[in-house]
Amino acid sequence: MPLLVMKFGGTSVADLARIRNAAQKVKSEVERGYDVIVIVSAMSGKTNELVGWVNETSPMYDAREYDAVVSSGENVTAGLMALTLQEMDVPARSWQGWQVPIQTTSQHGAARFQDIPRANLDAKFAEGFRVAVIAGFQGVSAEGRITTLGRGGSDTTAVAFAAAFDAERCDIYTDVDGIYTTDPRITSKARKLDKISFEEMLELASLGAKVLQTRSVELAMRYKVRLRVLSSFDDTDELSGTLVCDEDEIMESKVVSGVAYSREEAKLTLVTVEDRPGIAAAIFGPLSEAGVNVDMIVQNISEQNYKGREKPVTDMTFSCPVEQVARARKALETARDAGTISYDALEIDEDAAKVSVVGIGMRSHAGVAARMFRALADEGVNIKVIATSEIKISVLIDRKYMELAVQALHDAFELDKAG
Amino acid sequence: MPLLVMKFGGTSVADLARIRNAAQKVKSEVERGYDVIVIVSAMSGKTNELVGWVNETSPMYDAREYDAVVSSGENVTAGLMALTLQEMDVPARSWQGWQVPIQTTSQHGAARFQDIPRANLDAKFAEGFRVAVIAGFQGVSAEGRITTLGRGGSDTTAVAFAAAFDAERCDIYTDVDGIYTTDPRITSKARKLDKISFEEMLELASLGAKVLQTRSVELAMRYKVRLRVLSSFDDTDELSGTLVCDEDEIMESKVVSGVAYSREEAKLTLVTVEDRPGIAAAIFGPLSEAGVNVDMIVQNISEQNYKGREKPVTDMTFSCPVEQVARARKALETARDAGTISYDALEIDEDAAKVSVVGIGMRSHAGVAARMFRALADEGVNIKVIATSEIKISVLIDRKYMELAVQALHDAFELDKAG
Repeated sequence: MPLLVMKFGGTSVADLARIRNAAQKVKSEVERGYDVIVIVSAMSGKTNELVGWVNETSPMYDAREYDAVVSSGENVTAGLMALTLQEMDVPARSWQGWQVPIQTTSQHGAARFQDIPRANLDAKFAEGFRVAVIAGFQGVSAEGRITTLGRGGSDTTAVAFAAAFDAERCDIYTDVDGIYTTDPRITSKARKLDKISFEEMLELASLGAKVLQTRSVELAMRYKVRLRVLSSFDDTDELSGTLVCDEDEIMESKVVSGVAYSREEAKLTLVTVEDRPGIAAAIFGPLSEAGVNVDMIVQNISEQNYKGREKPVTDMTFSCPVEQVARARKALETARDAGTISYDALEIDEDAAKVSVVGIGMRSHAGVAARMFRALADEGVNIKVIATSEIKISVLIDRKYMELAVQALHDAFELDKAG
Repeated sequence: MPLLVMKFGGTSVADLARIRNAAQKVKSEVERGYDVIVIVSAMSGKTNELVGWVNETSPMYDAREYDAVVSSGENVTAGLMALTLQEMDVPARSWQGWQVPIQTTSQHGAARFQDIPRANLDAKFAEGFRVAVIAGFQGVSAEGRITTLGRGGSDTTAVAFAAAFDAERCDIYTDVDGIYTTDPRITSKARKLDKISFEEMLELASLGAKVLQTRSVELAMRYKVRLRVLSSFDDTDELSGTLVCDEDEIMESKVVSGVAYSREEAKLTLVTVEDRPGIAAAIFGPLSEAGVNVDMIVQNISEQNYKGREKPVTDMTFSCPVEQVARARKALETARDAGTISYDALEIDEDAAKVSVVGIGMRSHAGVAARMFRALADEGVNIKVIATSEIKISVLIDRKYMELAVQALHDAFELDKAG
């Protein structure tokens, strides 16, 4: 029988009425002829309550005990979902991670999948069970301890099951009805996309469109799992939402698919750094160790004998989230004090935001960058830093222009128009 | 190293502060040189919340899913207790039922222990762990499903571990400070017992002294596990509470150790029942199947040709909880309609209460019954039914005299005086 994976997030199973609503959607798919693997999150708020207790008990907690405690929220939802389906005459049972067993590494709190053996679930499907309800976000280590995948891990659980069981599709039910060309709160012209490629979704996910966890998209791309993002509060029973799929499935893609943004960015510039092999490693190694997520990096053209110096020097600019600026400053000053790097000054601009245009069509279309810069210039928006990848162009600008820039780019690339 | 089992009930782990308080008691025992197995219940209220969700979802629930859901409360407490102990520098880890593994039968919701293999815990103790925190009330079936033991099952878990690990003692921390000669709410003369035998405790537990689950006392008696009942809110660090132990440990026991009662009893009399072999089975079989807990049974002397009948007849009287009267009546009427029993009338008295005196000293002392009946007669209390066992005499009386009877018996047997 064809198989579907359906994942319901915390708001979609927040109480018994919502669990029933979700179960109804599962039943519809069973009636269409699918066997279904359902992945559930904890009822919304439950995981936060458990995490709160752990943190209050033990600020430097043993991650193995953390996992044992916080994984219990998903176990409750899984059992309740199985019971709800049984009430609807759908043969179902729940599975906790260790029962499948979902084998993971022993990195507690951030475990990674190693194997999802099919035997146990396949045997139940063969017996006539139509639905396996799986507690998301968890697994079991080789040592027999409960592991968790980190927050948002239920998306990843869903994709991993879809890959392991050759699912026709993996439906991610959430509280938004799909992926938009940009944030509808910034422009009412934002339009829901019917389809988007894995690559584009990855860029959008990591850029702040918080609908899907980045890791789950990576995994879906690797195993070519077709992902559908849709709302659990939309009661039309037709296919809706946005399909995240291989670009081969997208016939006519636009040059740009979406405009993403990240509001709280900072720009840091190390002035007059010695320009020698290994200097980048000497700067960014300590930042990484300090937990600073460096994003864009620009190294100015180095000028031999700059200001009469004997050694070549350069300026090094990078961006990171504003909240990490203090940590970044400390890491750099420590490195300077230790003599591993030298610089004349550290300039910090905490009033930046990042705006990006994303689209696989860029690969075959020239002139996207020029069109982007023109649109920003027409609105009088100054660009501080530019960074590009194969399918993305990002700029750092003054934060106060962020909404304006998003709107201008959405118009310039005609994202309000389909096709 | 000598080993102790310590069990903390729901009120003793109701919040993080109480878990810390409990952990402090565990630490004290570790400092005294014990390895400790800690059994924890769910935080008070949590199990009721989970049971409520299951019942609302599915009134005729699948007991396997019920168990998967309701067992999660103990898992949370076990992890938090392990973290709390670690914060106090006590090497500890948590164990869920399947991790030990606590092997049980597959009777979900009322599972029974089959085996508690020592290997996993012993290995950890050998590594230097001093405390194993076990989620109470749960186990795992041969099919790999989570089972629960029924409400109050954590006491039984504690005793089972004490037996399996040859514990020196099993301490049951609860919200009362021990076993009393009778309910202190009925007479202020009630006195805490230092020691009580398993047999006496069993009679008291099943008679309504709700401190220890009956099954846990039976298990303790079978495996000679010394049980101590004490309060987790008593902060004196000395041995306190009541020791439940083999009678050999009790040097000079009084004839009567305690007075128990059960308030909501009903007396039912089947008038003019045919007196033939198998009649008792024909009456009490259907009652048992209907879930009626028949307690005392009295069959009157049968009179040949009673009221001119040809066959011998008798009256049959029994008691059961008031709440089960409707069920009892229906079962009896159904049996009469089916022709398996016959009776002239069913008399029901719903205004009864049961009062019992319990004591292993009775075995070697005559006159206990006479002293009991005299004390009740002196207060003008009429006795409806009498039942006796080797260490217990119970009477059914009018409910309105219950407190008076308990007080009179407590005085008559001088239970307010030690030794």
